[in-house]
Amino acid sequence: MTNNSHYQQILSEIYLETKDSDDPGKVASYIPELSHINSNKFGVHLITSSQHHISVGDSGEKFSIQSVSKVLSLTLAFNLIGNKLWERVDVEPSGTAFNSLVQLEYEKGIPRNPFLNAGAIVVCDVLVSELNNPKDDLISFVRDLSGNTSINYNCKVAASEKRTGHRNIALTHLMKEFGNIKNDIDIVLDLYFDLCSIEMSCKELAQTFQYLVNKGINPINNKNFTSASKAKRINAIMLLCGFYDEAGEFAFRVGLPGKSGVGGGIIAINPEQYSIAVWSPKLNMKGNSYKGFELLEAFTTKSNSSIF
Amino acid sequence: MTNNSHYQQILSEIYLETKDSDDPGKVASYIPELSHINSNKFGVHLITSSQHHISVGDSGEKFSIQSVSKVLSLTLAFNLIGNKLWERVDVEPSGTAFNSLVQLEYEKGIPRNPFLNAGAIVVCDVLVSELNNPKDDLISFVRDLSGNTSINYNCKVAASEKRTGHRNIALTHLMKEFGNIKNDIDIVLDLYFDLCSIEMSCKELAQTFQYLVNKGINPINNKNFTSASKAKRINAIMLLCGFYDEAGEFAFRVGLPGKSGVGGGIIAINPEQYSIAVWSPKLNMKGNSYKGFELLEAFTTKSNSSIF
Amino acid sequence: MTNNSHYQQILSEIYLETKDSDDPGKVASYIPELSHINSNKFGVHLITSSQHHISVGDSGEKFSIQSVSKVLSLTLAFNLIGNKLWERVDVEPSGTAFNSLVQLEYEKGIPRNPFLNAGAIVVCDVLVSELNNPKDDLISFVRDLSGNTSINYNCKVAASEKRTGHRNIALTHLMKEFGNIKNDIDIVLDLYFDLCSIEMSCKELAQTFQYLVNKGINPINNKNFTSASKAKRINAIMLLCGFYDEAGEFAFRVGLPGKSGVGGGIIAINPEQYSIAVWSPKLNMKGNSYKGFELLEAFTTKSNSSIF
Amino acid sequence: MTNNSHYQQILSEIYLETKDSDDPGKVASYIPELSHINSNKFGVHLITSSQHHISVGDSGEKFSIQSVSKVLSLTLAFNLIGNKLWERVDVEPSGTAFNSLVQLEYEKGIPRNPFLNAGAIVVCDVLVSELNNPKDDLISFVRDLSGNTSINYNCKVAASEKRTGHRNIALTHLMKEFGNIKNDIDIVLDLYFDLCSIEMSCKELAQTFQYLVNKGINPINNKNFTSASKAKRINAIMLLCGFYDEAGEFAFRVGLPGKSGVGGGIIAINPEQYSIAVWSPKLNMKGNSYKGFELLEAFTTKSNSSIF
Repeated sequence: MTNNSHYQQILSEIYLETKDSDDPGKVASYIPELSHINSNKFGVHLITSSQHHISVGDSGEKFSIQSVSKVLSLTLAFNLIGNKLWERVDVEPSGTAFNSLVQLEYEKGIPRNPFLNAGAIVVCDVLVSELNNPKDDLISFVRDLSGNTSINYNCKVAASEKRTGHRNIALTHLMKEFGNIKNDIDIVLDLYFDLCSIEMSCKELAQTFQYLVNKGINPINNKNFTSASKAKRINAIMLLCGFYDEAGEFAFRVGLPGKSGVGGGIIAINPEQYSIAVWSPKLNMKGNSYKGFELLEAFTTKSNSSIF
Repeated sequence: MTNNSHYQQILSEIYLETKDSDDPGKVASYIPELSHINSNKFGVHLITSSQHHISVGDSGEKFSIQSVSKVLSLTLAFNLIGNKLWERVDVEPSGTAFNSLVQLEYEKGIPRNPFLNAGAIVVCDVLVSELNNPKDDLISFVRDLSGNTSINYNCKVAASEKRTGHRNIALTHLMKEFGNIKNDIDIVLDLYFDLCSIEMSCKELAQTFQYLVNKGINPINNKNFTSASKAKRINAIMLLCGFYDEAGEFAFRVGLPGKSGVGGGIIAINPEQYSIAVWSPKLNMKGNSYKGFELLEAFTTKSNSSIF
Repeated sequence: MTNNSHYQQILSEIYLETKDSDDPGKVASYIPELSHINSNKFGVHLITSSQHHISVGDSGEKFSIQSVSKVLSLTLAFNLIGNKLWERVDVEPSGTAFNSLVQLEYEKGIPRNPFLNAGAIVVCDVLVSELNNPKDDLISFVRDLSGNTSINYNCKVAASEKRTGHRNIALTHLMKEFGNIKNDIDIVLDLYFDLCSIEMSCKELAQTFQYLVNKGINPINNKNFTSASKAKRINAIMLLCGFYDEAGEFAFRVGLPGKSGVGGGIIAINPEQYSIAVWSPKLNMKGNSYKGFELLEAFTTKSNSSIF
Repeated sequence: MTNNSHYQQILSEIYLETKDSDDPGKVASYIPELSHINSNKFGVHLITSSQHHISVGDSGEKFSIQSVSKVLSLTLAFNLIGNKLWERVDVEPSGTAFNSLVQLEYEKGIPRNPFLNAGAIVVCDVLVSELNNPKDDLISFVRDLSGNTSINYNCKVAASEKRTGHRNIALTHLMKEFGNIKNDIDIVLDLYFDLCSIEMSCKELAQTFQYLVNKGINPINNKNFTSASKAKRINAIMLLCGFYDEAGEFAFRVGLPGKSGVGGGIIAINPEQYSIAVWSPKLNMKGNSYKGFELLEAFTTKSNSSIF
């Protein structure tokens, strides 16, 4: 049996098992627009490095990718200013809940990594400094990555987050106090909330992240979106920091670099092998998709395809 | 050119470059016995999964492997009690300095991972509970792993640490207060200090850790030291937690699971490819071997052999 | 010798001694408008419960009373909503630097006391909720307390603080997140920055605080500004929380309830005996007037008039 | 009506009211020997500066005064080494739970005040350094203060605490690590656990603390136990730090310097007026006697005798 048909068979089986199992998770309620989602949605899409596609369930339906998009803004900022980026945001796991102010204060306004809210806001500040039309240029970059011009922000979701995002505003003012935000806070936060509102289907997500499977190149158009060295480093950051306070658990049980969002999406990368996107809206206690996590653990175990 | 001769050539070159470069690091001074070491020692030893050896510099000289041995005690405890271990120690990176009491108190006596001092002490407590002669049984396990009966504790180093280890005693009493130490504190700490005093050369270290290259099996004697699943999980923990507060930096720049010790040793694993041990006693600000880190970064970059 | 002439003689002596001594302090620089002050200014004014006045040095010159005014806003809010106030702000000392976010986050948006920036902002939020014209009504209350209609905000100082007050904005958004700010953040902070910009001379300050010497009544106009019970409680809060992270030191060495501001002013109260205001702009490491503290310690020691 | 008969009448009334009221508190359970106490015991004893005695209820029955005795060891150490003591322990309130390790680590082994467990242990370390027979000399000092040779340690209680005191051992090792414990840890902790086991009745407690009412002198024997200046400073420390994380609340509601213990005892001082001891074993959430607190609040309110 080829790898492809092997993957197909495993995914079909574990999708059904996982779909039928209990889900103790809860849909994120703090963003009103997200709480209206049908919580039984469940999709998965895998693309191999040779562009073989496998999809099961609601893999073609768009959802709010939320923090998953922080990998994309990071890639763009890393491309733009290179290693200077690391003077403003670190690459260490956080060891505390994903939006804690404590560590940020203790470390003088330098966020521990670019996937914490504070870190992603610093990345947005870099984009505002470096791009002529940050909002347009960012979505163009994402569309290019995905090879899909229909991808867009959801302005209702962005507006919903803006109204309730007092903690993020607090974080940004604290970093401004420490000199680590260079631009107007409202402009930076507008870009941040837009970033988090991007919508994709599992299929689009798996396609968009192919550049991290293939050393910076997306095979569908053979475009080079970042260097092999940067792709490798972004994968490393994902492995260490991609799952809030559960990064260790994900590495331990799944064993792939990945990133989750409170919309219930997860992307995971097996370098030179495949990208896999999964979506199920109910979140576990740490804010990661409960069934998404279960499915990925079963998949890397049965396919024996972790990086370790 | 074969991989082997390729590795040989790269290691020889970067060894010389790194040897001649400035070293801003400092030998660990808090353990008196370690501070007498010749700080210019520098050795490296690589063993491929097919048991090809490459060695450069002081690779045959024994040194105190210190915290590197925490991977070995973890393996033994994980073998003995399986996933019950994770009820007593977590697998998350710590996000703070390696011996902080704060997080331990906040998380009710459950250390964040088995490579923090507190976590390694809990692992020793498990060994004291499970083994008839913990000290003898542990060193037997290590000798088996290495295929080398000469490996031993250094009782002078152990005694030196015992005299100065007030923070470790404090940690242990705090965990006892929370009910996470089951045995007599003196017995547990004796084993812990012995564990940290184990001595190996780079060659012995690379050989000992072959089981993590080969899914639990050491190819020299074909013995199965742990399951493939456990080996994978231990590699994951090393990647996330193996370098104190610099795990992210190591993953970002080197891209391999590994573990360092304050004696200046580092082991790193490329699953199914090779194990590599390096030793240089001067430590950077975060407590990891300065030149060891530099050499490994240069090696995985030039050999293009990170896991990401 | 009467108490009055005794106080006069002691104050004259220690004023000269303190004036001539070295001052290792520094003028507050974080508010640009305050940094231009003549740092050699030094004044003191004491008023006994029988309205005897003693003044030395620059006691008639107005300065920015800054955080000293937080006692006045507290009094007004306590009058308006009584013990309901303590559901929104605690009365415990903070044990950390005066503007730390850590404790606020740990305690779910409830500031530890009304003299922390966060606590004073909650008090302003109460005033915005309860008063028709918060800014006018507050300054009217202060003018009444002082029996002096010339007392006013300094809008340059308020504007200067607004431009640099990112940490205070962060604190306020964090409390809004926790539900402990009820009104529009900009309106609440405008009142807060105005409050901190009030100017008084030592003489005016000592007169304004007479109500805390006399169980709520200001003897010059016999008006009752708060109940005896509330006056007692405000004195208690001042003793425990009036000097940032140096409240213990002030109680230990001076032994009076009091409140300091970064403008270099200090008010201290000996219940049923006297109020004393001192002003010297250079601050010690903890943000309290260096010479003000020295003078008050010498005064209560020589006059044997602490409350302990 | 004289003050004395006034006090008598108030105490009798509020004793009965408080005795009959609900008590949501709980007897301390972490020290097994203390948990066997009859939880309905309730006594109070007041002694004026002119040695008038008023007693109600179980005021003659001995109980474990626990942390109340930390004031006595502090007095002795302050007498022995004067202001040098403050290089090793601070005089600031703690702002966190009474036995937290966090602050101690953050502040490099210097406890914030001498009534925290860590601070009292440092005080014991000073006594071990300065006294020939610390245990005998300390109890002699206490007997002298009380004018009562029957006062003693309870060795069962001390032994009970030793067996369960892992957190205190942890604190002491941490301070040893920072160089703030000079003597053998076991000797220091033995003295500390003995100190906490001292037993007195309310009457004996009120008598013992008369020196803090009368500027260092105990009127029954006219002996000078400390200077007026030191007595004043100890009162100040009690006001700011005497009630764990509830010091502000006690100052706010009662308005007297005081100290509580987990045995359910409280001593409070009105300088130059009276000392008052109360005992009721059930503790509120913060570890202070529930009814003791209630009675003292009612007493200072009705007698109008707070220091503010």
